[in-house]
Amino acid sequence: MTKVRIFVTYKPSVFDPQGDTIKKTIHALGHDEVADVQVGKFFDLTIDAQVDQVAKTVKEVAEKLLVNFNMETYTYQVMEEN
Amino acid sequence: MTKVRIFVTYKPSVFDPQGDTIKKTIHALGHDEVADVQVGKFFDLTIDAQVDQVAKTVKEVAEKLLVNFNMETYTYQVMEEN
Repeated sequence: MTKVRIFVTYKPSVFDPQGDTIKKTIHALGHDEVADVQVGKFFDLTIDAQVDQVAKTVKEVAEKLLVNFNMETYTYQVMEEN
Repeated sequence: MTKVRIFVTYKPSVFDPQGDTIKKTIHALGHDEVADVQVGKFFDLTIDAQVDQVAKTVKEVAEKLLVNFNMETYTYQVMEEN
């Protein structure tokens, strides 16, 4: 089993309204030291495969399901392997 | 500036309906090797402080705003410091 974490974020060119709203709320709480907030989603997948075989699964699942490539991009990292 | 990533997930005891639905859809795509899916959110905060001073900000922002402690829990990691 291999555990991977897929991170989905807005592309840098896309405005993140939720992040902007959260930043303003954080400032209202008195934490002006927070200069920027970006919001994203992640998906933890437990995959019944060795670590060298998960890249294809991650690519297909991201491209066919999890990521809206018009606005979003993704990265992933292996969290556990055994 | 220090960049931190705050990860918010359901507590292990809380059912994740979105993750369950995504898992079924992944199986429908033919990827039966995906045994489990858990969904979470993350927040990238750019904080105008040294790395040894961000813990208090992260704790307060998480507790007062980002995390619903009835159902969720959080962790964070430092992504960049300079």
